[in-house]
Amino acid sequence: MKKENSNTKMKKVFPFGEDLGGAKILIIGAGLCGSLLALRLAQRGYQIELREERSDLRKTDISAGKSINLAFSDRGIKALKMAGVVDKVFPLCIPMTGRMIHSIESETFLSPYSARDGEYINSVSRGQLNGLLLDEVEKFDNVNLQFNCGCTSVDLENNTATFFDKNYNQEEMVTADVIFGADGAGSILRKEMFLQREILFSYSQQFLEHGYKELSIPPTESGGFKTYKNALHIWPRGEYMLIALPNLDGSFTVTLFLPHNNSVYSFSELNTDEKVSNFFQKQFPDALELMPNLIDEFQNNPVGNLGTIKCSPWSYKGKTLLIGDAAHAVVPFYGQGMNASFEDVFVLDKFIDRHEGDWSKIFDEYEKERKRDADAIGDLAVENFYEMRDHVSNPIFKKKREIEIEFEKRFSYYSKYSMVTFREDMGYDEAMRIGNAQDKTLLNLIANNKLEGLEIEELFELVKKGVSEILDDDKVSKMMQH
Amino acid sequence: MKKENSNTKMKKVFPFGEDLGGAKILIIGAGLCGSLLALRLAQRGYQIELREERSDLRKTDISAGKSINLAFSDRGIKALKMAGVVDKVFPLCIPMTGRMIHSIESETFLSPYSARDGEYINSVSRGQLNGLLLDEVEKFDNVNLQFNCGCTSVDLENNTATFFDKNYNQEEMVTADVIFGADGAGSILRKEMFLQREILFSYSQQFLEHGYKELSIPPTESGGFKTYKNALHIWPRGEYMLIALPNLDGSFTVTLFLPHNNSVYSFSELNTDEKVSNFFQKQFPDALELMPNLIDEFQNNPVGNLGTIKCSPWSYKGKTLLIGDAAHAVVPFYGQGMNASFEDVFVLDKFIDRHEGDWSKIFDEYEKERKRDADAIGDLAVENFYEMRDHVSNPIFKKKREIEIEFEKRFSYYSKYSMVTFREDMGYDEAMRIGNAQDKTLLNLIANNKLEGLEIEELFELVKKGVSEILDDDKVSKMMQH
Repeated sequence: MKKENSNTKMKKVFPFGEDLGGAKILIIGAGLCGSLLALRLAQRGYQIELREERSDLRKTDISAGKSINLAFSDRGIKALKMAGVVDKVFPLCIPMTGRMIHSIESETFLSPYSARDGEYINSVSRGQLNGLLLDEVEKFDNVNLQFNCGCTSVDLENNTATFFDKNYNQEEMVTADVIFGADGAGSILRKEMFLQREILFSYSQQFLEHGYKELSIPPTESGGFKTYKNALHIWPRGEYMLIALPNLDGSFTVTLFLPHNNSVYSFSELNTDEKVSNFFQKQFPDALELMPNLIDEFQNNPVGNLGTIKCSPWSYKGKTLLIGDAAHAVVPFYGQGMNASFEDVFVLDKFIDRHEGDWSKIFDEYEKERKRDADAIGDLAVENFYEMRDHVSNPIFKKKREIEIEFEKRFSYYSKYSMVTFREDMGYDEAMRIGNAQDKTLLNLIANNKLEGLEIEELFELVKKGVSEILDDDKVSKMMQH
Repeated sequence: MKKENSNTKMKKVFPFGEDLGGAKILIIGAGLCGSLLALRLAQRGYQIELREERSDLRKTDISAGKSINLAFSDRGIKALKMAGVVDKVFPLCIPMTGRMIHSIESETFLSPYSARDGEYINSVSRGQLNGLLLDEVEKFDNVNLQFNCGCTSVDLENNTATFFDKNYNQEEMVTADVIFGADGAGSILRKEMFLQREILFSYSQQFLEHGYKELSIPPTESGGFKTYKNALHIWPRGEYMLIALPNLDGSFTVTLFLPHNNSVYSFSELNTDEKVSNFFQKQFPDALELMPNLIDEFQNNPVGNLGTIKCSPWSYKGKTLLIGDAAHAVVPFYGQGMNASFEDVFVLDKFIDRHEGDWSKIFDEYEKERKRDADAIGDLAVENFYEMRDHVSNPIFKKKREIEIEFEKRFSYYSKYSMVTFREDMGYDEAMRIGNAQDKTLLNLIANNKLEGLEIEELFELVKKGVSEILDDDKVSKMMQH
């Protein structure tokens, strides 16, 4: 099927009323992933029914119940470029060039993400970005987009999904050639696959003991930023942490990560205004000064859970595919959840190019390539929680970052963070393996005081050697394990 | 509460009719784990209701649908010793001193499990061992044991379990102070915890692409063994394998492990008698000669699935605890499923000793110590699949085993297998960490031809050094990850 570019108008069909040729595709969920997927498949000319449980976020003020702003980076950029819409996104972005670390004594230092220009991440509003994608989708007449239609079940054998349409208070059934479950971490399609005994569905959900609560730093009276604009702010405190990301209106969205229970400070323990005040006074005094609405927000905003979901297989009989969070929900600590979902669409598109028409082959090859990368970003995101809340203020870690910044300035070197975030040409799995080997080599050199008297070039060679030894050794023992 | 020894008779109570003091305990499942747990808690004087879904396996000939014989080893021995019944088990055992490897050319070699005397595993019948434990349980009047009572649901808040009693075709509700879910891999109690949103239940089920089918080698006409009695026989063939364990009656239980689908040889592909015959003729000719009933058994016996289950938390509000396979189902390749479940009871007993009466504390500390070991044996069992089906016949692996046998003869050295199987004083997690470091060091020395000209003492020192470096290096990078 010939690709259309994003501005072509096409004839509108409602539940696949008229056969335009090609597969009839149902996409469950018009969040970030479902919208981009619909856009891309619409550009390819498919007939698409796109259904979303929530109401249209462009018209309502209701929070999606998810984090308000996100870090948009190279893997996401790559996918939106493919769909021809990336230039419309950049105006919505605030570049964050590094982590601004706030100590308990209210001292700050900026730890850049990379020593190279152009390697930064972007704070973007989930609502604005999703709205933009929906606007683009609606330009296509071969897409029928419905809000307030939550999927209640999927009949996998007959490829029929049932929805409850709140617009008319009625149940509706939609049969399609292919059904995509882009319905997020609580995916109904995934639940159906879990319950289908025949599938032997491997499934994992892992919760952190920590929850999160969103708070805010309002803009200055003139609409400016109360603290440094172009950074991701972190208040690392070991067992818990506070972060803040900038918004276009001058405000920051602040998120507190704290254990649910069983800790000196926990969400269940912070149950009075006084306790909350004292906690912030003691732990985040500089942030507290910027947060006039703290107590109100703390009382009114819900506590969210933090979970990682992995599963396999993602597809069933070449007729259904889980994609985005539905296939691999991750915790937010690498800023990669949205980027990974967008990259899913990019990778899927590559296999549609290769095998267009043979969905079974497309889905099998897609999962074969993508699964290990999805697993890797799930693990990386959990590990980065420990790094952010704790190690960023650890001297050994700081020394490692210093050396890596020097390396990045002088050599073709990418830290683990850089590979994960900026090397959209490399899979998450490879980035993790090389990144872990680099970290292990560097941390051991530092911890064992092996740096003294070394020129930076010598150190670089030493690290290269250490990394290659670790990767070789792992190869032999992996070979023996699998 | 005072411990009674296993022969004391106590007054019988039916659903906790008369209060004898102490907690009223419901145990769901009278399999290997539930029976041993009931026995131990009965010895401690608790009032116990023990309910089993299946009929009494001592009176019926119905297969439990699980593997017929099992490998009983030191961790299981330790637990049955604690309960004072181990001496009754040994007469049911056939020692297996090593792996007897059968090549495709029908050549065999014996790879001993250890160079030390007394370090062997035992083939034992699941039915006989379970029957023995039930006999011991029934000596206690403070246990009420009911068969044909399957648990259908558990009300976690009110600590009430509902059963369907097939003896009377009626539903029954049992409320207890403490409920143990010893109801195996398909645990109903675990499902209830999974569904309870408040718990934030971390859960993982991972299936192998392989299934299994049980077959047999009958005894000789005089009741003798058709092949070497005191070994676990393996026919490793890469993508699949056959194993055989001896039974007291001279027969062997044979298990074929094969992919379900998508392979040159798979269960779905071997769908005619001729294909089955040809497969065995080509791949296992020496086994085929010993299996006159192959075709019949292959046609009639079901294909089982192979899955690993992990979850957390194991307990809820100090009132319910998952134990054995219900908490951590493992694949059978390390011969540790039953031993791990028995060891659960041993470890739990230690914490009952420490905190008797405070179930909440008992369960929390039990899980804190036991969870990482349960995770480790789950991972070890999957890894050992690859070792058994493939690497045992690999030259590098064989060389490693040779060296390790020499080490075990001369030094205080334990291979990973020995630590997991024979070092009941060491947790699975520690055994895995040290064992993996040993394997990695040895495999790399062999693969890189570093052995030449080395005396065995020098090699041993080199391995010790390598292991300690790996463990130290891992410590630094682990510290940075968590």
